[in-house]
Amino acid sequence: MKIESVDFFYLRMPEVLDIGDGSQDAALVRIRAGGLEGWGECEAAPLPTIAAYVCPMSHSACKPVSYAVEGMALNEPADIRRIADTVHTHSFDLLQADHTLSGIDIALWDLLGKKLGEPVFHLLGYKQAYAKTPYASQLFGDTPERTYEKAVLAGASGYHAVKFGWGPIGRQDAAADALHFRAAREGLGPDRYLMVDIGTVWKEDTDAAEKRLKALKDADVYWLEEPFTNMALGAYRQLSVSEPTVRLAAGEGCNNYVQAAAMMDYAGLQFIQIDTGRIGGITQAKRVADTAAARGMTYVNHTFTSHLALSASLQPYAGLEKDIICEYPVEPQQLALDMTTDRILPDANGQIRIPEEAGLGLTVNTGGLQKYVLNIEIRVGERMVYQTPSL
Amino acid sequence: MKIESVDFFYLRMPEVLDIGDGSQDAALVRIRAGGLEGWGECEAAPLPTIAAYVCPMSHSACKPVSYAVEGMALNEPADIRRIADTVHTHSFDLLQADHTLSGIDIALWDLLGKKLGEPVFHLLGYKQAYAKTPYASQLFGDTPERTYEKAVLAGASGYHAVKFGWGPIGRQDAAADALHFRAAREGLGPDRYLMVDIGTVWKEDTDAAEKRLKALKDADVYWLEEPFTNMALGAYRQLSVSEPTVRLAAGEGCNNYVQAAAMMDYAGLQFIQIDTGRIGGITQAKRVADTAAARGMTYVNHTFTSHLALSASLQPYAGLEKDIICEYPVEPQQLALDMTTDRILPDANGQIRIPEEAGLGLTVNTGGLQKYVLNIEIRVGERMVYQTPSL
Repeated sequence: MKIESVDFFYLRMPEVLDIGDGSQDAALVRIRAGGLEGWGECEAAPLPTIAAYVCPMSHSACKPVSYAVEGMALNEPADIRRIADTVHTHSFDLLQADHTLSGIDIALWDLLGKKLGEPVFHLLGYKQAYAKTPYASQLFGDTPERTYEKAVLAGASGYHAVKFGWGPIGRQDAAADALHFRAAREGLGPDRYLMVDIGTVWKEDTDAAEKRLKALKDADVYWLEEPFTNMALGAYRQLSVSEPTVRLAAGEGCNNYVQAAAMMDYAGLQFIQIDTGRIGGITQAKRVADTAAARGMTYVNHTFTSHLALSASLQPYAGLEKDIICEYPVEPQQLALDMTTDRILPDANGQIRIPEEAGLGLTVNTGGLQKYVLNIEIRVGERMVYQTPSL
Repeated sequence: MKIESVDFFYLRMPEVLDIGDGSQDAALVRIRAGGLEGWGECEAAPLPTIAAYVCPMSHSACKPVSYAVEGMALNEPADIRRIADTVHTHSFDLLQADHTLSGIDIALWDLLGKKLGEPVFHLLGYKQAYAKTPYASQLFGDTPERTYEKAVLAGASGYHAVKFGWGPIGRQDAAADALHFRAAREGLGPDRYLMVDIGTVWKEDTDAAEKRLKALKDADVYWLEEPFTNMALGAYRQLSVSEPTVRLAAGEGCNNYVQAAAMMDYAGLQFIQIDTGRIGGITQAKRVADTAAARGMTYVNHTFTSHLALSASLQPYAGLEKDIICEYPVEPQQLALDMTTDRILPDANGQIRIPEEAGLGLTVNTGGLQKYVLNIEIRVGERMVYQTPSL
């Protein structure tokens, strides 16, 4: 079959707050071919992401992403890999292109899975998918007391692992941060895994990170996530050998495979975290998972929004039996919950399983999403290059 | 003074060809404050670059670039550095942001220089600027015969160094490429520097690169530029120790400082090439130049378009006496030539000197650019978020 249409939808909550919650809007992609539809999401700013699809060509290596996609054949996994390769050849000077490609690549895998009647992870070469242990991923409270309450609630919900991130952390002094780390541990009790996500606040400042190591160790933190700017290899490396040692996790900011490979080679990480909605989709994420497996490093999904994005994020490492940890959004906005009619829910043992149905295995709730659609129009000269289609 | 307005202009040649010539369009930035105007250029796809300035906020780390700029104080260099820092803190999940910031940062330096009556390189801390030896930067011919003719012409024009890039190179077999390398050397004669730019065609394929090393060495190539994808550290590293050794140059694809630092640390480069129109502007490029100087590595500007972009690209290393090589566009489109009323031209010795006038030292030719302006309109919901202003 041939790709007939690629449509982007900018979905948004009525109010978007200045908080570290990426589920307040979405860049949803719909691809149609052979009477079927595939769906994907870019974990990206919707307007520049759409612009990167429809912009006029600047030169041979700065073409719109549409160049690689429209009218192309889609019959087997090699077709999807060729489309990614075409984007990398013809759009590598268009910075936003990888974020745009991400949602397209995911939608192509969903579509191909539906055509072939297979879940995506089968098409990736995995014979079976293993259950994952979700960690509840949520924001720190504004105060240590609020962090404590959130930890108590998360623990009571049955999660074996909980991650706190963003909010006030790293923006105040080390003593104030330590109160949050301790509150999280006390709220969770001693038996659950606790992870801490700094959200790159310290940029390249290893001193700031080193000042918090003792408090992180005292709170028995399982990993410290994104203390620094993505690709700040020197800062990561230095922190990885600082005492007391705390395991490092990072990688969600990588927008292509070679960046993730560099982080695996030189940042001193124990966990490589990949967002399929940013790295160029499932195709690039699977390459990272293969490399991580070959090196004995742990692959973890990064995802914070809808269950469509969650399913996409699980596919690249669904068949890696030993990599059992997975991020699971526990407090997304209603938009993210309304994205699909079905969801991936923890079972009685607190484990989740990737859908076994064709494609990503979830149904996009087009009716329920209507109220979130923000109509976009982009005009270049005399030409209307983008107008939101009907969802 | 306070920043009063930031305006983007999408300029384009009547026809844009599918060739490796980035001067066919431009994203020009005008910033006004205190009765003065500063100008900059993003070496980027104009439409996504504008979208990254005006898009609505997605979350706390995915804000439009405008958040960091509009209404901010501009009285000293620290104000520009703070704006860059704000973009990195509040827009790091917006991939295109660094390309948008680049033109803004350049315009801010131009504006501050005009206010303080100083050329930008003085504000960067350089007491004096040293003459640079320009290399003529141009595309390979479609055939070895055409490459030979171009080499003869470039040599006859008085350039001591000539770089050929893109075109057919790397897309055919090694023997065909070798004919081009030899034609370029024969056309130039034995005494001039010859550089070769692959334009990342081999991605991560070290075999493809290694097959060309002997022919590159036989043609006495001074450096081999961008054989691989930006940040493909492993491939660069391997090639840097392959026999026969050829010096490696890369870095133009870096969109922030930490990526350039990673390339300097791990890619086995001898030359770090920075495009101020992509890395976040003069501020980030100066950090790279400082690091390169501290490590005894050679900094080279990357630029292929207007003389406004050329001046901006020279500022970060204007005062580095030993880094004398500079890229100089010899066959830009008329749009790039029309960008300014004055130009930076080689003297009788074939050397160029950065302007000593305030700011970037060049005057934007607003009248002559009118015919290239492409009117853009972007509407989000009920709101018109961007409409091309008058130039």
